[in-house]
Amino acid sequence: MHSDRRPRLTPAMADVRRAVRKALAMQAGPVLVALSGGADSLALAAATAFEAPRAGLRAGAVIVDHGLQAGSADAAAQAAQAARELGLDPVLVRAVVVAGDGSGPESAARAARYRAFEEAMRDTGATHVLLGHTLDDQAETVLLGLARGSGPTSLQGMSSVTGPYLRPLLGIRRATTQQYCRDAGLSPWADPQNGDPRYARVRVRQRVLPTLEQELGPGVAEALARTAEQLREDADALDALVLEVIEEICEPAEGGIAVSVGALAANPPALRQRIIRFVVESEFGVTLSRAQTLAAVRLVTDWHGQKGVDLPGVRVERQNGLLVFRVTRAVAADH
Amino acid sequence: MHSDRRPRLTPAMADVRRAVRKALAMQAGPVLVALSGGADSLALAAATAFEAPRAGLRAGAVIVDHGLQAGSADAAAQAAQAARELGLDPVLVRAVVVAGDGSGPESAARAARYRAFEEAMRDTGATHVLLGHTLDDQAETVLLGLARGSGPTSLQGMSSVTGPYLRPLLGIRRATTQQYCRDAGLSPWADPQNGDPRYARVRVRQRVLPTLEQELGPGVAEALARTAEQLREDADALDALVLEVIEEICEPAEGGIAVSVGALAANPPALRQRIIRFVVESEFGVTLSRAQTLAAVRLVTDWHGQKGVDLPGVRVERQNGLLVFRVTRAVAADH
Repeated sequence: MHSDRRPRLTPAMADVRRAVRKALAMQAGPVLVALSGGADSLALAAATAFEAPRAGLRAGAVIVDHGLQAGSADAAAQAAQAARELGLDPVLVRAVVVAGDGSGPESAARAARYRAFEEAMRDTGATHVLLGHTLDDQAETVLLGLARGSGPTSLQGMSSVTGPYLRPLLGIRRATTQQYCRDAGLSPWADPQNGDPRYARVRVRQRVLPTLEQELGPGVAEALARTAEQLREDADALDALVLEVIEEICEPAEGGIAVSVGALAANPPALRQRIIRFVVESEFGVTLSRAQTLAAVRLVTDWHGQKGVDLPGVRVERQNGLLVFRVTRAVAADH
Repeated sequence: MHSDRRPRLTPAMADVRRAVRKALAMQAGPVLVALSGGADSLALAAATAFEAPRAGLRAGAVIVDHGLQAGSADAAAQAAQAARELGLDPVLVRAVVVAGDGSGPESAARAARYRAFEEAMRDTGATHVLLGHTLDDQAETVLLGLARGSGPTSLQGMSSVTGPYLRPLLGIRRATTQQYCRDAGLSPWADPQNGDPRYARVRVRQRVLPTLEQELGPGVAEALARTAEQLREDADALDALVLEVIEEICEPAEGGIAVSVGALAANPPALRQRIIRFVVESEFGVTLSRAQTLAAVRLVTDWHGQKGVDLPGVRVERQNGLLVFRVTRAVAADH
């Protein structure tokens, strides 16, 4: 894939390499680049192949063949070949089975992919996997979250560090990774799914973001990414506060857990709602929507002797100054 | 403007009246409807004229003539006539002079308008002014804030209560106010500015929101409004926390104010940044951008003996475990 073994350093290459260098500076163990063969991950692979040795790190690649399209095995083999030519070692190709888990094909593919990454880390001793998500992916994520209206959580986008996963390119535009590939004589693979308008993300990329940039000026993608960063900080601060108080205000209750109504009432709405969501999530594994959370909140803020509120698999009642959360029988039997 | 003095109650009328009834239920004094004559404020005026007497309240109207377009005095007079026909009393028309204050024509008009509202409240003894902002206005505000990337603050949109200003229609679609006017035989005035694509808000209304709804499904405006509500709650909680700690961690310093570096370091980033913004805003009247705030933060989190950071009119230095904020001479001389 190289047209030139030692391409001249261009601005795009410098930008991507600098971003990768910064991410690798914090690492000690070997890393793997998650390579699809697309421009984003190919530029990431090339920059990592360049930077890792200079940071004293071994860097390999892991290519996941989702088996969802004809020719996916060939595409995986080509990506592996590109990774080897870049000098990455080891290069793993993992074929996965995408099993429908009821949450949609994109979600199932993501789950299978991350399982393959976990295995690859175990098998190679790598401590981290580098993902090629760019600033454009981040902006798209924010817009998709906005459209769902599922609140600040979904607007936070992706973090540059999530456990063993690093996203060095979150500050880099997609066009820069494409330029990197051109500059370095690399031939990225164009995933046909990336042009399929049946995916909401593709429609955001092809129609929504361009409209926003045309009507509101360039810099919208950067603004969305900046917003995501700030929202993540806000959410982290509020989550930390919930963790600080949660032990004090919860107590075991027969068949469930209880939270002090007084403590809930004393907290501002944002914390009150987070406490309820946290309790239900951690005790019962149920993620509440905003509407469900607010229904439970009304037992605190709009109390006039209601019977209680039925949430998915969980019933909440107010008893003796406590909100008591108990698993409901239907769901208990499922377990 | 009435084609029928007693129009049948339609769903649109019921929705708008219910929203107004809810807002008026919390009031004691007389109120004024801010009436432009457009569909939003005309429906608000009609619903308020209906609901206020039932809530035992007097309700008048205030019409602001900005004098920015030919015929604006006629439009104001027509709106006043409509208000009187609806039974609102008193009906005030206030001509204002929109003076350029360097912040753009929209901002100058808004400042002049709110000054007129304050005067109208003083002159009539009204305790509140009702504003006709709808859910669509809220969604547009969120998108405009996103495009600016000025962070969660600008995404919070408008509050249903801001001091003496009430926005009863924030949960009502603009189409519902238009339907109300048709149902009630009212003829709203079409402000030519509402169709002028030189305004970013008009482009959002006419092009951006329709694209979002087309590509991501209906309900995007509602989702944006819901997001704004949650972000406002989050920001309120974080602001309350800043106010709780601020007294403890600040002390006077020669020519300025000082904040404990240890306390700043111990707080999560979201609070650290808000503390710095709060101190600079309240002490020096300067609103910091995110980039400026982060520059000051680095004196805490990335300290390697820097000289200090110059912010607009304010210099920050780290001295003896304190961040010291002092007004800089150039700006001091301006005052």
